[in-house]
Amino acid sequence: MQENKTAQIAVLAGDYIGPEIMAAGLKVLQAVSEEGRFEYKIHEEPFGGAAIDQAGDPLPQQTLETCQQSDAILLAAIGGPKWDQAPKRPEAGLLEIRKALNLFANIRPTAISSAMQQYSPIKNEKPVDFVIVRELTSGIYFGTPREKHADYALDTMRYTKEEVQRITHIAFQMAQKRRHHVTLVDKANVLATSKFWREIVGEIARDYPDVTYDTSYVDAASMKIISAPDQFDVILTENLFGDILSDESAEITGSLGTIPSMSQGSDGPALYEPIHGSAPDIAGKGIADPISMVKSVAMMLANTFDRQDLATEITDAINETISKQIMTPDLGGHANTDEVTQAIINSIQESR
Amino acid sequence: MQENKTAQIAVLAGDYIGPEIMAAGLKVLQAVSEEGRFEYKIHEEPFGGAAIDQAGDPLPQQTLETCQQSDAILLAAIGGPKWDQAPKRPEAGLLEIRKALNLFANIRPTAISSAMQQYSPIKNEKPVDFVIVRELTSGIYFGTPREKHADYALDTMRYTKEEVQRITHIAFQMAQKRRHHVTLVDKANVLATSKFWREIVGEIARDYPDVTYDTSYVDAASMKIISAPDQFDVILTENLFGDILSDESAEITGSLGTIPSMSQGSDGPALYEPIHGSAPDIAGKGIADPISMVKSVAMMLANTFDRQDLATEITDAINETISKQIMTPDLGGHANTDEVTQAIINSIQESR
Ligand SMILES: CC(C)[C@H](C(=O)O)[C@@H](O)C(=O)O
Ligand SMILES: CC(C)[C@H](C(=O)O)[C@@H](O)C(=O)O
Repeated sequence: MQENKTAQIAVLAGDYIGPEIMAAGLKVLQAVSEEGRFEYKIHEEPFGGAAIDQAGDPLPQQTLETCQQSDAILLAAIGGPKWDQAPKRPEAGLLEIRKALNLFANIRPTAISSAMQQYSPIKNEKPVDFVIVRELTSGIYFGTPREKHADYALDTMRYTKEEVQRITHIAFQMAQKRRHHVTLVDKANVLATSKFWREIVGEIARDYPDVTYDTSYVDAASMKIISAPDQFDVILTENLFGDILSDESAEITGSLGTIPSMSQGSDGPALYEPIHGSAPDIAGKGIADPISMVKSVAMMLANTFDRQDLATEITDAINETISKQIMTPDLGGHANTDEVTQAIINSIQESR
Repeated sequence: MQENKTAQIAVLAGDYIGPEIMAAGLKVLQAVSEEGRFEYKIHEEPFGGAAIDQAGDPLPQQTLETCQQSDAILLAAIGGPKWDQAPKRPEAGLLEIRKALNLFANIRPTAISSAMQQYSPIKNEKPVDFVIVRELTSGIYFGTPREKHADYALDTMRYTKEEVQRITHIAFQMAQKRRHHVTLVDKANVLATSKFWREIVGEIARDYPDVTYDTSYVDAASMKIISAPDQFDVILTENLFGDILSDESAEITGSLGTIPSMSQGSDGPALYEPIHGSAPDIAGKGIADPISMVKSVAMMLANTFDRQDLATEITDAINETISKQIMTPDLGGHANTDEVTQAIINSIQESR
């Protein structure tokens, strides 16, 4: 990002609770940016189910172009029962935008601090702090042939060397800024693609002598996430395994509604979004937890705009709000979305 | 099984702790069979790493033939670091035997009773009791093409209609003997094979009006296994998802060393085995938990030989042994394999 240039932010509010939490995220962004601290312009576009309703397609051309011309993208959540029978579902738009913007690296932090331990459904009491680096634009999500006939169907899990290499470097570079450990998760005792990953990652690992490296089968990893999650630092894995393990990891925090994620390519805008879905069951009630969206805003400020200072203001304000027990029902609180959002904003303003 | 015919049991002790727990399982089988209660003959054959060492192949022809001619197969555990670089690894033998015997249905019970709740790594306190029905001889484990080149690699997830149908009937029939609920786990928002499964399973579900039926995406299921495992009854899923979810499910019990499993076809012998691996780290120490193997024996007696009476004697004896705190270290006890095994045998004998 060039200094002093107005940041261009594409905003995709999406479906069900999406617009509710996006509004919260944008209010916090405004609060933290006040008095010229951060100059930005938002560009709202329809995406997902909302875009199907408006334009007949979950990812309209105009939405994609706005994203391509932006510095960063904020996405809330898409999909829901309303479009389950649509010829092209909201999720298809998600896969398309990932591919079109080449967002090959999905970064998902999983943390359980001692303060948050009480919300965790697991008994483990050691602090947990790891990141999943999930390959996002290849593998069985995009491999061809993909066929469904009357008598059989098939999908193809496919990876090129370059696809494995680029995500591997991201994982190792991330480990260098953390606890210097990478675990490759695969199924190398069965899959050809996993053996392929193991060879390439093993070779690249030698270029990072300051990072220790090990491997785990995906079935074993799904156990360790429950029994010893404190032992992970960076988990590197392919698209489908990453989908499963990152949701499992989110669950062990017990606070799904508070976790952001980032999807990035080699260049171009990165996309920031909560890891949870559009929660049709609580939409319109005003009780959705805004924290995942607010943290997505913080992640964007730190990563795309190099404003760790503002990101820290936001996360400090979130922590203070939680410590005051101002929380939505998912964390056992009685506050609504607006109250939590306002408390975060108050905390930001008071700290100045 | 014909009445009064001597039961023919193939015994594959395998590697590392395999022979230790198999010995325990066979001692309990002998104890429960005493005084003409059950007539059987065991046929021990090398399999896995042991077979690589002896015969250069993890599944020698002789071993396969013995299995084919038996009424049931007991397998302990195979594999380990010793054979990691072998041209054909022990695991390849496992895949081969599944395919050769057409063991397309892998049945894995997951239960947490109130007595065992203390061993569980999750906080959930409701009793958990579900079964995973995993397709075992198709999908990405066996699909072709499967290729690894210098620049790319690929695997194929492939299912035929018949493969999906036969496992679906097994799941629904199992639900009829349980709490009458089946959950299909898939990734139908992305995969063609999952959409294919959903169509076929949805149709078959209509033939079982006494069974309620729902579906879950695999990522969501990996969360629910932690947050609300009490809500599952029968989980039906394809091979790879079943691999991951069944290990995750085992982990939430906190007592991996006590869980048996069964793999069966439409006819021919079924295979019974612990769900855990060969545990090289504790091999030779005499402290492996024998319960998973002993329960595999009980599962065999109940299912292949229709001897629920003997199976119940065994499980009662196991429960009594645990309630006396005679347990191996994995359950926090101080007993060794022999002591636990002997306590189970004593309990069987005393109850007569
Ligand atoms: C909605 C779905 C296609 C998507 C995925 O599987 O990637 C979601 O689960 C996610 O993890 O972002
Ligand atoms: C050893 C391996 C090939 C096997 C599998 O993935 O099926 C194992 O994990 C299992 O679940 O029995």
